Amino acid sequence: MQRNVAQKLIAAHLVSGEMTAGQEVALRIDQTLTQDATGTLVMLELEALDLDHAHTEVSVQYVDHNLLQADSKNAEDHAFLRSACQRYGLWYSKPGNGVSHPTHMQRFGRPGKTLVGSDSHTPAAGSLGMLAIGLGGIEVAMAIAGNPIHLRMPEIWGVRLRGELPDWVSAKDVILEMLRRHGVNGGVNRIIEYHGPGLAGLTAMDRHVIANMGAELGATSTVFPADNQVLAFLRAEQREADFVELLADDGAEYDITDDIDLSAIEPLIALPSSPGNVVTVREVAGRDVDQVVIGSSANPGLRDFAMAAAIVAGRQTHPRVSFDVNPSSRQILQDLTKMGATFSLIGAGARLHQSGCMGCIGMGQAPANGRNSLRTMPRNFPGRSGTREDSVYLCSPETAAAAALTGQITDPRDLPQLLGIDYPHLELPTVSSVNTAMLEPPPAEDTPRAVLVKGTNISSLPDFSPLPDRIEAPVALKVGNDISTDEILPAGARVLPYRSNIPKLAEFTFGQIDDTYAQRALADKDGCGHIVVGGANYGQGSSREHAVIAPRYLGLRAVLAVSFARIHWQNLANFGVLALEFTDTADYEKISQGDILILDDLRHGIESGAEITVHNATRDEHFTTRHRLSARQVAMVSAGGLIPWQRTAK
Amino acid sequence: MQRNVAQKLIAAHLVSGEMTAGQEVALRIDQTLTQDATGTLVMLELEALDLDHAHTEVSVQYVDHNLLQADSKNAEDHAFLRSACQRYGLWYSKPGNGVSHPTHMQRFGRPGKTLVGSDSHTPAAGSLGMLAIGLGGIEVAMAIAGNPIHLRMPEIWGVRLRGELPDWVSAKDVILEMLRRHGVNGGVNRIIEYHGPGLAGLTAMDRHVIANMGAELGATSTVFPADNQVLAFLRAEQREADFVELLADDGAEYDITDDIDLSAIEPLIALPSSPGNVVTVREVAGRDVDQVVIGSSANPGLRDFAMAAAIVAGRQTHPRVSFDVNPSSRQILQDLTKMGATFSLIGAGARLHQSGCMGCIGMGQAPANGRNSLRTMPRNFPGRSGTREDSVYLCSPETAAAAALTGQITDPRDLPQLLGIDYPHLELPTVSSVNTAMLEPPPAEDTPRAVLVKGTNISSLPDFSPLPDRIEAPVALKVGNDISTDEILPAGARVLPYRSNIPKLAEFTFGQIDDTYAQRALADKDGCGHIVVGGANYGQGSSREHAVIAPRYLGLRAVLAVSFARIHWQNLANFGVLALEFTDTADYEKISQGDILILDDLRHGIESGAEITVHNATRDEHFTTRHRLSARQVAMVSAGGLIPWQRTAK
Repeated sequence: MQRNVAQKLIAAHLVSGEMTAGQEVALRIDQTLTQDATGTLVMLELEALDLDHAHTEVSVQYVDHNLLQADSKNAEDHAFLRSACQRYGLWYSKPGNGVSHPTHMQRFGRPGKTLVGSDSHTPAAGSLGMLAIGLGGIEVAMAIAGNPIHLRMPEIWGVRLRGELPDWVSAKDVILEMLRRHGVNGGVNRIIEYHGPGLAGLTAMDRHVIANMGAELGATSTVFPADNQVLAFLRAEQREADFVELLADDGAEYDITDDIDLSAIEPLIALPSSPGNVVTVREVAGRDVDQVVIGSSANPGLRDFAMAAAIVAGRQTHPRVSFDVNPSSRQILQDLTKMGATFSLIGAGARLHQSGCMGCIGMGQAPANGRNSLRTMPRNFPGRSGTREDSVYLCSPETAAAAALTGQITDPRDLPQLLGIDYPHLELPTVSSVNTAMLEPPPAEDTPRAVLVKGTNISSLPDFSPLPDRIEAPVALKVGNDISTDEILPAGARVLPYRSNIPKLAEFTFGQIDDTYAQRALADKDGCGHIVVGGANYGQGSSREHAVIAPRYLGLRAVLAVSFARIHWQNLANFGVLALEFTDTADYEKISQGDILILDDLRHGIESGAEITVHNATRDEHFTTRHRLSARQVAMVSAGGLIPWQRTAK
Repeated sequence: MQRNVAQKLIAAHLVSGEMTAGQEVALRIDQTLTQDATGTLVMLELEALDLDHAHTEVSVQYVDHNLLQADSKNAEDHAFLRSACQRYGLWYSKPGNGVSHPTHMQRFGRPGKTLVGSDSHTPAAGSLGMLAIGLGGIEVAMAIAGNPIHLRMPEIWGVRLRGELPDWVSAKDVILEMLRRHGVNGGVNRIIEYHGPGLAGLTAMDRHVIANMGAELGATSTVFPADNQVLAFLRAEQREADFVELLADDGAEYDITDDIDLSAIEPLIALPSSPGNVVTVREVAGRDVDQVVIGSSANPGLRDFAMAAAIVAGRQTHPRVSFDVNPSSRQILQDLTKMGATFSLIGAGARLHQSGCMGCIGMGQAPANGRNSLRTMPRNFPGRSGTREDSVYLCSPETAAAAALTGQITDPRDLPQLLGIDYPHLELPTVSSVNTAMLEPPPAEDTPRAVLVKGTNISSLPDFSPLPDRIEAPVALKVGNDISTDEILPAGARVLPYRSNIPKLAEFTFGQIDDTYAQRALADKDGCGHIVVGGANYGQGSSREHAVIAPRYLGLRAVLAVSFARIHWQNLANFGVLALEFTDTADYEKISQGDILILDDLRHGIESGAEITVHNATRDEHFTTRHRLSARQVAMVSAGGLIPWQRTAK
């Protein structure tokens, strides 16, 4: 049978289950990555699991989120993570070394391998012919401990690329075109596999851009073949020996198909406040811009910064514009500096920031309320920038640089005529500045176990009780469609430093939507708990399991929604919150915030079938819902989540 | 009569008064600088004064403190400041252009001119033969409006320099030597004037280091002659035409004298948590270091960064050390990049931050509690780094770079033997990268007046009531010696963004010392108010008038102290708080926190003489205190401060 790349990757790692869409499969995991915002919890979970040492081929702990260090908390978290790496045998990537996704690709990515990461943009590594999946931290902890991961076999979505991108149009516009066509739910329960003759013109870093933002389509992952472009990339990284060719078989088929003519793509832009609000730059040209930000894992490559530098070189940014440049890794900043691009950026008025995630996760450079900020980042969910009434647009480095010069949204194809700027044909170095000194290797296995260094901000995980047999609880909050984990539990400089301190963190839950929720919930935290009702694609966005742990701490027992985003749905199960979908989506309309819902005979109910009847006691109406839990997950949710379940099993 | 440089500067600007130490003099002001953390309030004060346009030769508003932008507040403050510059005719230095002191020196500093700034390190400009003084914002606002400033004529302290600095020893060690000899009170009510043959070997930027940290000695200002080194500096900045020679007359005398043999200075370091705790590096060598920071206005020059770069070039920083590099201006970063030093720093593992004040004012890069941080900054008051239990050392770039490599406090003179590093004899460019594009000039005077753009975080100044005739109030807080304005009102990322929002800001008052103070005071804010008792040098450190406005808002009516730092003392008067010194310092011991003090017949009392009797009602004891207010200041304090006094006068 002819197989596509995704099928080959899954088949090579299949531990159990059948490769039929919708069936649960278990996959062996070769590599893991964690970042600091989710990683402190993962390390506490490894401690709870009493792990001896990592059982993967490679596990890396990056520090890229909490870099501002407004007080002692971040620096103490870094020291904790470093000690955990020493104790459990992980690589430690120091603050300043760079964003996990491009750094992992440059130093550890290998065709044919599986990778899970406690970060929703982990699929970026699919650019190298890997199967890379973003998961909640507890599942990554289990993978580090050598366990397979479980997921429902996704459909494989083959997207055929043909033609070549025109000048001023780049990989970011390709993924924005996908979002324009399919929206933020288009990839749910799918792996996107790009193929076709158009691939020849896309470098591995271009593919990273596309694979990274596959997360914005809700896709389980994105894969590319490991072809000559991947070979060229690994050669530039002085890792040619790690190359293995991985191509789809001739005649391989896909569950769903799509086709993109690259030569027909034009500069695109996502309007506030969803990556799915995509229009052509032309349609919104002329709007005033106060801030332009170049950086993040969505446009992390040397090319992306060098392109912006070439466009602004010898010119000055508009007086109103703050032009923030945020190199994605130390290595890329070294190469940029060596080739003179750093000088061009500074000369044009760039504020050059330390390598890391920065504004992409609201860690600094928040814009003014209501003023337009153009960013090369992957997400513009409301408030994610750190500003409550933000107005963030997502675009390519070409479009961003054009706005930095003109102070308005500008189609970069107009730059020759407007400012006499010819399209820069970049000559990039064929060999990168490889410098691994900020990557600390795991200690030798015979080294005595290091002691964990816990600052005062590191608290333990709370204990979670088993699922009760009867829930009679109010709907504490009813929300609409496409609620992101940024809205459930914000990131940003105010909140992220508490990522290891659940009681404090919980105070911020849903604050973006209803700042009375946390207090109301807390008042009845140890009583009968509460329920949240959501629309479609509930929990889209980042992988943060805190978006379950915090409301669970406040007494959340069940979420009823039209549909769920994949990672968040798994996180709910992992922490013992029952996720139910309306059998008839019209029932969503028949619930009001404050209604008392009764779910009876629950423990037996979820074991014996998927259907659960809900009684709306306030309206005295009944309706049915479904859970989609596997037998394994039913046992886990009944026990109160993965950790109590593991403890019971011991 | 032969005059020294300080006397010539004062004589040339004397509006009224006599140049006798201790007498009040009024001086004409040519230039002002404000930074964003104090400047928003200055702009609101200009609004309250209904200013038409700046009456100075040059007034510049810098944005260098609040650059992290964790939410919308900072960006909105920047937009407000830019609009205020357009309205009142000030230069606007954009975020990212650099720290006020080196930038002002490079672009606007002129020998023979006077400068006042709402920043305590303003005297750095004394490096060019200017008289530069740090003041509270309201006095800078008055200067922008064309009024002279008033101060008591200081003593002139002549410090003769001879010899040449040895290798591995630099200007920072000279000012640390001054602090070792004289402590943080050594310069109170003095202008330090450096002279002698040793000056020939100190560049203008070296002198900036020394003049900048004259503030740490409590000095009113520091002056240097405008000699060939100043000419060379202005020539490099392409401003040779601005040079005017200004030298002391032969045979000029000084009120106090001191003498330093530069060739005998060795590497010095200030221990936590005072710039006055100076010892030789040798004495504390070997202590572990977790963080090294290069930057700030205390070591702002190209040389300081280039020296660190040359030391670490081709090497790697210690795995435990976070090596944070914070360029002081865009121009210096451009020159560093051009000469390859930026590349060396990044290659060695530096985290390169945007140009600005950063960690010097607790805006990011806070260390872990109790872990040693070595910084080239001017201050290490407790908690100023943003970390409550911080352990910050102050040293030269040479000493800092050595620690970055070894992970321990290391005398840089040991580097040749330890690591085979020869002393780097730097070749710096003789012409700087002049780039003024981030400096927006004031609009032409016939331009229609711009409208102030006020974000939601900009509140008006509260109204302050006149001094009551009788104060009967509790001692809400009793503190010890050398309490800094950082301890009265912290800076840092959590607090600084509220600099334009007094009610919110007041919640943080004295939080570092006693976090119950603000709540206790607030409870009786509109009652009889309260009193604070302090030791010697009360209110040392930064110029922030918020350290008076915030406790005044909470009901502070009087401070009784052994002695006061100059700027804070003036700020107390400017906002109507009575500052009293114990006639017999032993009376300080006879007051306890909570005692009720009674000051009677006050308004008449402060007019008729300096002596005020205080009745400690709790102990039924009497003691005497003195105010040092001039007649002008008596009227001002009686009215409730400068603003109500100005309003009454109209």
